[in-house]
Amino acid sequence: MKHGKKPVILINYKTYAEATGRKALILTKEIERVALDSYAYVAVAPQFADIRMIAENTELPVFAQHVDPIEEGSNTGHVLASCIKEAGAVGTIINHAEKRLRIADIEKIIKICKKHELICVACANTPGVSASLSTLSPNYVAVEPPELIGGDISVSVAKPDVVKGAVDAVKRVNKGVGVLCGAGVKNENDVYRALALGVDGVLLASGVVKAKKPGNVMADLLKGVEKYLKEGLR
Amino acid sequence: MKHGKKPVILINYKTYAEATGRKALILTKEIERVALDSYAYVAVAPQFADIRMIAENTELPVFAQHVDPIEEGSNTGHVLASCIKEAGAVGTIINHAEKRLRIADIEKIIKICKKHELICVACANTPGVSASLSTLSPNYVAVEPPELIGGDISVSVAKPDVVKGAVDAVKRVNKGVGVLCGAGVKNENDVYRALALGVDGVLLASGVVKAKKPGNVMADLLKGVEKYLKEGLR
Amino acid sequence: MKHGKKPVILINYKTYAEATGRKALILTKEIERVALDSYAYVAVAPQFADIRMIAENTELPVFAQHVDPIEEGSNTGHVLASCIKEAGAVGTIINHAEKRLRIADIEKIIKICKKHELICVACANTPGVSASLSTLSPNYVAVEPPELIGGDISVSVAKPDVVKGAVDAVKRVNKGVGVLCGAGVKNENDVYRALALGVDGVLLASGVVKAKKPGNVMADLLKGVEKYLKEGLR
Amino acid sequence: MKHGKKPVILINYKTYAEATGRKALILTKEIERVALDSYAYVAVAPQFADIRMIAENTELPVFAQHVDPIEEGSNTGHVLASCIKEAGAVGTIINHAEKRLRIADIEKIIKICKKHELICVACANTPGVSASLSTLSPNYVAVEPPELIGGDISVSVAKPDVVKGAVDAVKRVNKGVGVLCGAGVKNENDVYRALALGVDGVLLASGVVKAKKPGNVMADLLKGVEKYLKEGLR
Repeated sequence: MKHGKKPVILINYKTYAEATGRKALILTKEIERVALDSYAYVAVAPQFADIRMIAENTELPVFAQHVDPIEEGSNTGHVLASCIKEAGAVGTIINHAEKRLRIADIEKIIKICKKHELICVACANTPGVSASLSTLSPNYVAVEPPELIGGDISVSVAKPDVVKGAVDAVKRVNKGVGVLCGAGVKNENDVYRALALGVDGVLLASGVVKAKKPGNVMADLLKGVEKYLKEGLR
Repeated sequence: MKHGKKPVILINYKTYAEATGRKALILTKEIERVALDSYAYVAVAPQFADIRMIAENTELPVFAQHVDPIEEGSNTGHVLASCIKEAGAVGTIINHAEKRLRIADIEKIIKICKKHELICVACANTPGVSASLSTLSPNYVAVEPPELIGGDISVSVAKPDVVKGAVDAVKRVNKGVGVLCGAGVKNENDVYRALALGVDGVLLASGVVKAKKPGNVMADLLKGVEKYLKEGLR
Repeated sequence: MKHGKKPVILINYKTYAEATGRKALILTKEIERVALDSYAYVAVAPQFADIRMIAENTELPVFAQHVDPIEEGSNTGHVLASCIKEAGAVGTIINHAEKRLRIADIEKIIKICKKHELICVACANTPGVSASLSTLSPNYVAVEPPELIGGDISVSVAKPDVVKGAVDAVKRVNKGVGVLCGAGVKNENDVYRALALGVDGVLLASGVVKAKKPGNVMADLLKGVEKYLKEGLR
Repeated sequence: MKHGKKPVILINYKTYAEATGRKALILTKEIERVALDSYAYVAVAPQFADIRMIAENTELPVFAQHVDPIEEGSNTGHVLASCIKEAGAVGTIINHAEKRLRIADIEKIIKICKKHELICVACANTPGVSASLSTLSPNYVAVEPPELIGGDISVSVAKPDVVKGAVDAVKRVNKGVGVLCGAGVKNENDVYRALALGVDGVLLASGVVKAKKPGNVMADLLKGVEKYLKEGLR
């Protein structure tokens, strides 16, 4: 399974109780059941201490939620790229609204990710920051208006101009960078409209993690991908 | 194996290449070989993503190197106490010189550790900060002069006044808090002198992790404990 | 005018529009009009760039809102104790809920303040943190429950246990440290009740700064001091 | 005096003892003596608490060394753009190596600067970060390799590729953004070579501030500007 061809659906487990430890594994298996061999590149981002267990037990690609701008050495309490890589991660989210980073550190982390062949999804709060990050060549920029994170209304419905603005801004600066959007994404329509606005995928968390039936939500999200792709084939 | 009776030797793996992933496991087994059923409470603190693998494969107690002042919820990229606990950690280091924390956050983390029954080792750079932290009732305060961290001279030899000062200051403020010292600890004499200054144990990293034969260094450190305890028995 | 004998009323100008630049000066003169030669040690804490202008134009003592844990040298964008001292400040607030600091830095700042003879008011969010900070011997600890800051209900009315808890905790650890309380303080009764709970004064901001008639509020606060002192004389 | 036409020489006073309070004023007058009506736009960046005094006593443009990503309101200890503006600053340095900022905050600060018509000089450690910042349209990006800051060798001599790389990268992304370079700049040749590499000016600190005769150094730096400009006229 490789990113780059299929639309991306990246599920951020944050530190939700429903996505910690054993529950993270159960959740992953439920997502996997409907997401493997689907039209999308579906990946999950569990907590650091769960990465290895999840990676050993799923065929879905596993991401970290953050890595630090450090290499091997004296860095107590920091997250080392080569450590999460060896644990089974194929990529990482960075600069999430809940873990904002300094610009000099972001450049360093992106270089470290390249060196260790980790897919890097750099989050941005605005189209402007999306453009700024894209100059540093992460694999993806993910635009997420902070005020919609964790809410009930999808960014692709509530703020299509932000999504479109990020797509346009990134493409203008660095065509090699993919664009995701996130915040409030929860159903087929949210995903469909996001893809229709030009993004390469979506980033979401509570929509799946806190759902009563995560597998059903996952299936619904995938319908949005399918609908979009089939229209494109016509 | 329980802390509190035996002198503590806590080995911080930091993000050393020699203590990452598979190498962390090999190192742990080598330490375990000489440290199990010894006179000391020997614990290891690997990186977050290695905690579960190490904990599942050793009888040594496993610590995290940091936890964040958060509970379950929306905290992308943060370290959740209940997650590292479920992964197998019995405790955590916090406020290391390489991961300094705000005082309000330290109080919160110590409360979270108590709630989750995690042993909390709060690091301090001076006797003054040791006293300050001890009012918040972590299980241990570990005093480490930053300028000696990673160096060749043990704090117990180079700065006995700092060690003694921390012991005295902590005991004056909160007798229930244990005191460790760290920085430059490498051999039998360093450990012996630390214990003779009144600490309940030592915190070390490169001395063991970067040694050519970590098992031999570990055995040497344990001799320091043995020597100290036997003198006390006379 | 010297702190230590009289109850303290320290007015934090934050970055309120009503307390910036020329308006900060007008506000200060209005406070001064009713506060000079009163029963309280009334001090004002304007923004860094306003300290000199305010200090040159009032007889009230002037505080900074923060200083950094640095001495002279290469520290672009930082706040140097000796600079704000030369500009006319006699003291500083540190570790405010809106500018939380690391414990190691707090110890360093308090030492720097002593060296430069600046009165240091260290803020705390809880009785526990108040006790912790008091071991480091700032002149005052100011306990402010973050959830009440900027609100309409005084900490001394809404959370007398927090105020009393902080007073008791600090006195137990370090009798040489004064205790202030803050958050929501707005009128005579708030001040009176705070002093009755054992504090040495109050810290407030919006109650005075955003009042339509700051002079009237100031006069009202001073009545609370007067009432408390006169009762004590009976 | 207006920036934009003339090469810029921006002198960062940091928290040097030689550039604090009264000494900052003496230094400024010495710089002013040789720099007024010169071929360059010479500006000085004193500490926050000195801005007003310096601005009131010099005709040189005055910059702040940092502003925070905040507007009027509850932000104790923060630096408000409108406050330093009212105190006399015409611009500000941000994201200096000694005060690194988060990317989301940089975008916000740049917008705040535009709103308050403050010239914004955003520092970068590499050509990559220079390009990244230039998408956010600060007035200037100043590239400074951290390892050369405070040293004896000018970036324009030691790392011409970094300077050239930053100029090229910024011009490719956003032609409207000026480029400065800094670190180790000390004499005529350093300035001349910097301008020859395509920058719009230089940022320096210790070279002038810690000189025995700052006025002489200033005159020397201006010779570098003059030499460059005259060559261009031929």
